[in-house]
Amino acid sequence: MDSLAAVEDHPADDLVGLTAALVAVPSVFPDERVLADAVERRLRNRAPGLVIDRVANNVFARTQLGADRRIVLGGHLDTVPANDNAVPRLEGDTLYGLGTADMKGSLAVLLALAELIERREPRFDVTLFWYEGEEVAEEHNGLRHVFEVAPELLAADLAILCEPTGGWVEAGCQGTVHLRAEFTGVRAHSARPWMGANAIAKMAPVLDRVATHSIGSVEVDGLEFTQALETVRVEGGVANNVVPDAAAFVVNRRFAPCFSTDDAIAQTAALLDGADRIEVVNESPGAHPNLANPLVAEFVEVGSLPVRSKLGWTDVARFASRGVPALNFGAGDPTLAHTKDERVERADLERCHHVLTRFCGL
Amino acid sequence: MDSLAAVEDHPADDLVGLTAALVAVPSVFPDERVLADAVERRLRNRAPGLVIDRVANNVFARTQLGADRRIVLGGHLDTVPANDNAVPRLEGDTLYGLGTADMKGSLAVLLALAELIERREPRFDVTLFWYEGEEVAEEHNGLRHVFEVAPELLAADLAILCEPTGGWVEAGCQGTVHLRAEFTGVRAHSARPWMGANAIAKMAPVLDRVATHSIGSVEVDGLEFTQALETVRVEGGVANNVVPDAAAFVVNRRFAPCFSTDDAIAQTAALLDGADRIEVVNESPGAHPNLANPLVAEFVEVGSLPVRSKLGWTDVARFASRGVPALNFGAGDPTLAHTKDERVERADLERCHHVLTRFCGL
Repeated sequence: MDSLAAVEDHPADDLVGLTAALVAVPSVFPDERVLADAVERRLRNRAPGLVIDRVANNVFARTQLGADRRIVLGGHLDTVPANDNAVPRLEGDTLYGLGTADMKGSLAVLLALAELIERREPRFDVTLFWYEGEEVAEEHNGLRHVFEVAPELLAADLAILCEPTGGWVEAGCQGTVHLRAEFTGVRAHSARPWMGANAIAKMAPVLDRVATHSIGSVEVDGLEFTQALETVRVEGGVANNVVPDAAAFVVNRRFAPCFSTDDAIAQTAALLDGADRIEVVNESPGAHPNLANPLVAEFVEVGSLPVRSKLGWTDVARFASRGVPALNFGAGDPTLAHTKDERVERADLERCHHVLTRFCGL
Repeated sequence: MDSLAAVEDHPADDLVGLTAALVAVPSVFPDERVLADAVERRLRNRAPGLVIDRVANNVFARTQLGADRRIVLGGHLDTVPANDNAVPRLEGDTLYGLGTADMKGSLAVLLALAELIERREPRFDVTLFWYEGEEVAEEHNGLRHVFEVAPELLAADLAILCEPTGGWVEAGCQGTVHLRAEFTGVRAHSARPWMGANAIAKMAPVLDRVATHSIGSVEVDGLEFTQALETVRVEGGVANNVVPDAAAFVVNRRFAPCFSTDDAIAQTAALLDGADRIEVVNESPGAHPNLANPLVAEFVEVGSLPVRSKLGWTDVARFASRGVPALNFGAGDPTLAHTKDERVERADLERCHHVLTRFCGL
């Protein structure tokens, strides 16, 4: 059986085998279409009772029970580029390969869940989704696109994003802003620097201030959010005998979800005092952990799950900004994502499947 | 008369016209050949009593009088690229155009000098030279090449380089070294920076130390050499969500000729303490003013010339490092070199010609 056929037909009770089939079909952005097609065909064949929708390479499978609450669960189809790990390899109960942890293991769990929902009625209405363009620039994000053109497909009382969390609930997420600080000077020959003004020298104390600033942690809902403030780029210079007239650096602030993006931008800009121009390169709000929300509390309770903060930014923030409580929960060790040795354990897949099944009352 | 023919035939007593002819023949490196050919033909026709030599696009015209002292005088054929100023334009007694000051005006003076030497015997043996590749990287420098393959052509007791000095004697020159300071860290996701080490943050205090350091002036032979220490390039960064593992900056130290390049490198490296690696990108020694040298003193005396230090590096250092006292003296305002409004005055050309003629006893 070739890998595409396996994505369509591999038995859902073998989560490792189904994950391997998904891994074997490359889906680096912008080439998610083949995998999205196979996922859609599988759902139409094996869960015909669900309402199947397709928007670009984003696939949706929904119940229409008329329940008073709806849960949405999903994950992204795309992976980062291969790093000598394109072919899945099973060693004992460990499956190695690109996307095993981030996040085709969880996609397999979601496909299995669709078949269970087809056979048994869940206690909520459920929307499952598989989307494109998560590992690349914001403008390509499939969820962003669907929220713009068909937001009704994502309406819910709770969103669960199946990013790898190693079996933890990673609640909410930190926000992220990038600010670019630009410094201007006047060019001159470097043998007569007093005829000009060195933009790199003007930048240096500000760069040093950012480097030595301690940004600290913030507790939200009893979870510690360890913030970050890192200079990620610096540039300046014209030629080796010219006093440079321009220099710039980019700082990335990761901020606890008790702060708005405006808060984070203002706090960061204050540290950049002395720059001639500050540009907000991008801004993405965080997501509150919402641990007091009844559905979030119930999810943690039903699975007896440990809870920690999510320090990176994830698409949970997209739901949170629309008033939908959202959490991260999925199979796979998050620290293995984007590494050559990416892998997932059979037990991890089965535990993830068990928790989601139990929460849905299946 | 076309411009090439004018370079060969324009009367030497019209220095402005001869300069205009030289300006009208483009000679941006590596295209000096056409102009070098014309200069060589002019010399062979109009100063046939001199020994003419050619090494690549470097042209030499020498007396062989058997005098006990020899003076070498010269200038470079090449210019920087045009900046909307390729065509010479005469307004009153001011000639505008690329290379008028740096340094085709002085080349015209040297061509006129060759004809005078042909007709009247100078009080020294005299070597005149016109060379290629000065405005570009060191490896292309014509003098460097000739010093390697035919150093006897440049042997002398005094070298006068006719770079624009506005009628001053610019004595000796400062040396220059470029050091590159590299900083290494460990990559990590910018949401978990404690998993890595930020190379830009490691660099920041060192960059700031260099920016705030005051390098000061040094007096040599009674002349003030205003030194310089400028950061001319800075770079670092991998991606906007990655803690960078590498950063670097390049610092240019201009040093008074009382210091050796080893002195200057050691002094500069001490300021870069904290760097993981320091690379000496290039090093060029300065040239001592040598004002006590009898020929230098006589040149200043004969022309009643004002004297100041030369802050930029020039090819005088190439002579000085071989034990030949050397000074800069030429027509044209040095601050106009490499500018769009580059120009030279008729009076400046004539004064330069007068001083050189008188010094040579013609």
